Amino acid sequence: MRMVELIQKKRNGLVLSPEEIRFIIRGYVQGSIPDYQMSALTMAIYYKGMTAEETAELTMAMAQSGDQVELSFPGKTFVDKHSSGGVGDKTTLIVGPMVAACGVPVAKMSGRGLGHTGGTIDKLSSIPGFQVEMKQKDFLEQVNRIGLSVTAQTGNLVPADKKLYALRDVTATVDSIPLIASSIMSKKIASGARGIVLDVKYGSGAFTGSLKEAKILAKTMVRIGRNLGRETVAILSNMDQPLGKAVGNSLEVLEAVNSLQGNGPADLMEVSYELASWMLVLGKKAKTRDEARKILEENVEKGRAWQKFLEFVEAQGGNTAAVANKQFTLAPIRLEVKAEKNGFIHNQDARVIGICAMNLGAGRETKESSIDLGAGICLEKKSGDYVRKGETVFELYTSNAEKAGLVADLLKTAVRIKDQPVSHKPIVAQVILK
Amino acid sequence: MRMVELIQKKRNGLVLSPEEIRFIIRGYVQGSIPDYQMSALTMAIYYKGMTAEETAELTMAMAQSGDQVELSFPGKTFVDKHSSGGVGDKTTLIVGPMVAACGVPVAKMSGRGLGHTGGTIDKLSSIPGFQVEMKQKDFLEQVNRIGLSVTAQTGNLVPADKKLYALRDVTATVDSIPLIASSIMSKKIASGARGIVLDVKYGSGAFTGSLKEAKILAKTMVRIGRNLGRETVAILSNMDQPLGKAVGNSLEVLEAVNSLQGNGPADLMEVSYELASWMLVLGKKAKTRDEARKILEENVEKGRAWQKFLEFVEAQGGNTAAVANKQFTLAPIRLEVKAEKNGFIHNQDARVIGICAMNLGAGRETKESSIDLGAGICLEKKSGDYVRKGETVFELYTSNAEKAGLVADLLKTAVRIKDQPVSHKPIVAQVILK
Repeated sequence: MRMVELIQKKRNGLVLSPEEIRFIIRGYVQGSIPDYQMSALTMAIYYKGMTAEETAELTMAMAQSGDQVELSFPGKTFVDKHSSGGVGDKTTLIVGPMVAACGVPVAKMSGRGLGHTGGTIDKLSSIPGFQVEMKQKDFLEQVNRIGLSVTAQTGNLVPADKKLYALRDVTATVDSIPLIASSIMSKKIASGARGIVLDVKYGSGAFTGSLKEAKILAKTMVRIGRNLGRETVAILSNMDQPLGKAVGNSLEVLEAVNSLQGNGPADLMEVSYELASWMLVLGKKAKTRDEARKILEENVEKGRAWQKFLEFVEAQGGNTAAVANKQFTLAPIRLEVKAEKNGFIHNQDARVIGICAMNLGAGRETKESSIDLGAGICLEKKSGDYVRKGETVFELYTSNAEKAGLVADLLKTAVRIKDQPVSHKPIVAQVILK
Repeated sequence: MRMVELIQKKRNGLVLSPEEIRFIIRGYVQGSIPDYQMSALTMAIYYKGMTAEETAELTMAMAQSGDQVELSFPGKTFVDKHSSGGVGDKTTLIVGPMVAACGVPVAKMSGRGLGHTGGTIDKLSSIPGFQVEMKQKDFLEQVNRIGLSVTAQTGNLVPADKKLYALRDVTATVDSIPLIASSIMSKKIASGARGIVLDVKYGSGAFTGSLKEAKILAKTMVRIGRNLGRETVAILSNMDQPLGKAVGNSLEVLEAVNSLQGNGPADLMEVSYELASWMLVLGKKAKTRDEARKILEENVEKGRAWQKFLEFVEAQGGNTAAVANKQFTLAPIRLEVKAEKNGFIHNQDARVIGICAMNLGAGRETKESSIDLGAGICLEKKSGDYVRKGETVFELYTSNAEKAGLVADLLKTAVRIKDQPVSHKPIVAQVILK
């Protein structure tokens, strides 16, 4: 097999065979296929796409390119969750304990934040004492013991994806649906998931702008799952504005705690329940989504989800007293952004708010940036709320005195206030089952 | 300027600015733009094409990437000729002396053959004593003295094309019209040509299969020439069968000698006169193609073209007595392929014949292969001829006893004999002036 002929085949719009795809990924990881051939191929894929079978094969070849975690819990199905990333998305912190409290094991490898979106590992780091780096053995032992564990991605998981993503990033071949889908799904499969629940976000704060594109991506991933024998469900959720009211690491953990205690914002609870419901269905703890939802709501009401969270924090070395007493260190400089007129809040641009939070210190501009766990933005009002002139819309937390004022000014542009009330749109636009 | 953004721009079908194209070529030659970005760009160009302005700019940026030959002959216009390559194409050996004999200087840098097509430098090497490697100074001095010089490409001419072609070759981005056109034209422009006559071949033995594609390539090159102030004319000539009757280095020089003496095969003479006529027109020695043709025919009849060839051979150290006496060493093993029935010869597949000649030793399979200058094939009959069963159709010359029989068998498949006569098609299908 010669790589140049495989590039030509794809260039001409033909279908690569499973053997050819495995040859490509193996050769690329081993170094016998150079970057310049791989980038020509990814550009051809950008234009010509891949069939469902090709995409599934690519996913599997990538998943098998490095270590593969074997997670088996006797009598239980390991279901993993993935979010395509957004602003204020702390659902893992809520869904994890909720689902684990119902007896479905949650073993999650998460990432750090980059750009205007946050990462679960950064959020958890804001709990005093919490250990985000775990040995594989301890990680698995903890899931077996309490049903829940979250660790930073370690080891040689999906090296093909790491190498390929870095190449796509500098060759303008990032936005290709089959390449995005196989990148996400290969990591879930290498992590040992037997069932996968995906939260594909669309809107200004998401990587996928339109609902239409998000739907294509979701369908592609659900099909990969089906082709590889992993039951997969995707929800399409709106990310035109931040999820919940808190953006920033400590602030988001605080909001997650409130949510687990039954006091979460409506949009955040809706997305969390939807994701958790499907995890219960795939984890065989409920037959239908509605049945799952009832079980979950009962678990939250009875405090079991919240107790599971405390158990989880304690297991990973976190200070449970600080969490229970909501003692999080917030950044010292506080500023308020006030409404400039009376009216209904129509939009709070997630992308702008995400960029503002990053500039306050809550996020990383590059992989090397350090972050301020106590920095962030509270949305005192959400879209649809009525606000009076002078009322606080945003509260800012930062250690950066220089940037604070500028960010406050910028935030004013992120909110639209109009006379007419807002027509309600559901936060979860659609569920993709096939 | 960031290369990834330029790739994305072209990927999205937008037009690159002159500055952007120069940035790309400069960066690629200097090494600041890596192969993996360049191959992604060339794949995007494969799909999205380039405008006439982009193609011209790319050509100029490549031409300026290395040494540029300055050829100025007081009161004369330097016209260069290029053929897209074919089987049995010895036109340079005929056209060069013809044109030089009329007072238009011919200073040609030529290549060696590869694959099923031959190269002028190999053909000239079959003349005993002939020097194909010349110093720049001697090369120019000879053109000034006798009006004709041919040398192997040397120096750092168009390094951008060398590097880019090697990359395209392994990334399935060779067959892109703007990339092919700019590759050819950049070399002509760096060689100092003020006028350019192109022979774009189509048919089984050409790199471009269809007349339609050849026409697009020809028009693209003529437009590049116009955009860069180089008068350019292209002829489209048929390469379904070999040009003339000789394929192989010594055999082809012999045929060129016969042609210059007025005894050339009709198709070869037609293409040679057409090319030479346009060179005279661009070289301002004739106002029209027809006027040029008359001048050329007169020069051949009076033996001036043939004398110019002898002068040229002598100037480059070749044995003129051997040439005049047609003493060329042919390969020792000779085989004849005979007609299997009576009828008219309808086709003699140039590609098959080219591959057969290469296997007899006349051509190179890879750049590193050595060649047998005395090997080759004589077409005793050409398309349209009537042949009787048992008459010789091909004569083979080789030093390779092992392959000879196999090649003879293969050659039988390259000829079609039918009862109906052949309808005549002109060898030059079209002339592209704009």
